[in-house]
Amino acid sequence: MTANEQLLLVRVPDGQLTPDCFATRHGEVADPGRGELVIRNLLLSIDPAARAWLSQRTYRDQLRPGDVMAGYTLGEVVAENGSGHAIGSLVFADGGWQEYAVLPGSAARTVAPRAELPVELGLLGITGLTAYFGLLRIGRPQPGATVVVSAAAGATGNVVGQLARARECRVIGIAGSAEKGRVLVDELGFDAFVNHRSPTLRDDLRAAAPDGIDIYFDNVGGLVLATVLPMMRTFGRVVCCGAVSEYDTGAGGMAARAIPGLLVTRRLLMQGFLVHDFEDEWADAHDVLAAEYAAGRLVSVHEVLDGLGSAPDALVGLLHGENVGKRMVRIAEMR
Amino acid sequence: MTANEQLLLVRVPDGQLTPDCFATRHGEVADPGRGELVIRNLLLSIDPAARAWLSQRTYRDQLRPGDVMAGYTLGEVVAENGSGHAIGSLVFADGGWQEYAVLPGSAARTVAPRAELPVELGLLGITGLTAYFGLLRIGRPQPGATVVVSAAAGATGNVVGQLARARECRVIGIAGSAEKGRVLVDELGFDAFVNHRSPTLRDDLRAAAPDGIDIYFDNVGGLVLATVLPMMRTFGRVVCCGAVSEYDTGAGGMAARAIPGLLVTRRLLMQGFLVHDFEDEWADAHDVLAAEYAAGRLVSVHEVLDGLGSAPDALVGLLHGENVGKRMVRIAEMR
Repeated sequence: MTANEQLLLVRVPDGQLTPDCFATRHGEVADPGRGELVIRNLLLSIDPAARAWLSQRTYRDQLRPGDVMAGYTLGEVVAENGSGHAIGSLVFADGGWQEYAVLPGSAARTVAPRAELPVELGLLGITGLTAYFGLLRIGRPQPGATVVVSAAAGATGNVVGQLARARECRVIGIAGSAEKGRVLVDELGFDAFVNHRSPTLRDDLRAAAPDGIDIYFDNVGGLVLATVLPMMRTFGRVVCCGAVSEYDTGAGGMAARAIPGLLVTRRLLMQGFLVHDFEDEWADAHDVLAAEYAAGRLVSVHEVLDGLGSAPDALVGLLHGENVGKRMVRIAEMR
Repeated sequence: MTANEQLLLVRVPDGQLTPDCFATRHGEVADPGRGELVIRNLLLSIDPAARAWLSQRTYRDQLRPGDVMAGYTLGEVVAENGSGHAIGSLVFADGGWQEYAVLPGSAARTVAPRAELPVELGLLGITGLTAYFGLLRIGRPQPGATVVVSAAAGATGNVVGQLARARECRVIGIAGSAEKGRVLVDELGFDAFVNHRSPTLRDDLRAAAPDGIDIYFDNVGGLVLATVLPMMRTFGRVVCCGAVSEYDTGAGGMAARAIPGLLVTRRLLMQGFLVHDFEDEWADAHDVLAAEYAAGRLVSVHEVLDGLGSAPDALVGLLHGENVGKRMVRIAEMR
């Protein structure tokens, strides 16, 4: 049997996540049952949503102590049993924090790579697709619109801003450090940066968006959402993508007093979505993103950490806002 | 000159509205200037939104002490000066709490009555149109959907429920008294009634909608909105029409902790609207509502109080929830 190193959730975090919520198990890879395949995980995506999975039922069941920690992976099919996948092919799956995953064939999606693997997992993967569908389908940017995105230096946020810039919007990024702001403005073409830790956040935002905001792509919820809402222009759209400010604190929705009164008087739309809602269109969107990347209109900002064992610290640090762009962990090299 | 009795706003209410915020002025009707018309107000609509106009800039400028109190009216054109309106015709306008209004021609809309005047002002007027566009365009009811409407015995709410019933939805009305509940269920065909004053509101709602809620037509905001949100089904829609629970108290948005986290995980839509956003389609919708009324599929629930002087008490009482259906004041008889 092949050895399979796995990281389990062993404790449900109470408040901030700490690395000791996870522990290693040395197991073995099972043979694939009928219709299953075995994936050798190559790259593991580190996502803020993972924090929410630990505390509550979301769009997936809550993870329980003893479960292999969940996470999206790019992997190579190394065995299969009538799964419909070819051995040696590249797949995207909910492969988990482990070297090998045994899954039903329907749980893996074949990837025809258009770029190096970290770009495939981030910019051209679920992260880029999240930015794409949220911005284009819910935000509906028009040239000249003012777009604000929070967690702008994060994996999704930086792509939202780049996509909006490419559609001739004025883009304001909200992030938590001057260094992140520098990357956004100097390297990614954002028009302005606002630091959400500023004691004058409200005034800073007003200065950056003196005529108001048409689209707010919200990755954080909480105080930033409450601050942005009163600045929304009539018929503005709030794309609800995440609430990372609330995942790790249990703070819950800070009273956005503007809801629902301001939604009525300004005729605002707030809409939540998951990238999975658009699965039928992933292939087409992947082509669009790959073409914009190949043409140099989109830049991939990512960071690859080495080894499955680095995943706990990688997630904890992500929730503390320490990274820029897409964070991922290399579990193995493509053979 | 013709005498013109008017009710002015003389004091901005601080907290609950009281009748002494208004006072009578005996004025005279001015001659219409170029492009203007003179309307003899017949029926005055009493609307909860009027309370919001007194406290803040909404979709209209805040009213100031000394202003004629604003309100929508059905009136008869009695004089005009190149306004494009014929003397003797019936018009809908922001005619105000007064016997006569002098307005630009563009501020009045000709009404081709399809029913008696109180039905025209309520069910077939701006109130019915509000229910129609909010429910159909934002709520998008499908047969079998579970629809909850708050202030269900109010002018808009009762029409929302009737329209949803006619579209084969299961309809739950939230209102504040058992007598209102009786009207909803026994007279208007609602499937269930929940009293928002119940100490077991949450459990009562769960019992009435055990499988969750697809569409919530929100007229009240506050506690009821916060209670309904966690019961929304995936891809549910919240139609934000009003926040009457907040207009008269200054309470502001009670923390709906589900926002934005639940909007993401359940992929909910919340959208505010004003009936004026659909003005281009009013005529067509008026025809639809008139046909449903003529066929007996819609019932008009309204109450007509007599005399301009009854308007202050009518509005104060409305905000206390004392009426059922559309409340209006008869200022004069059609000649």
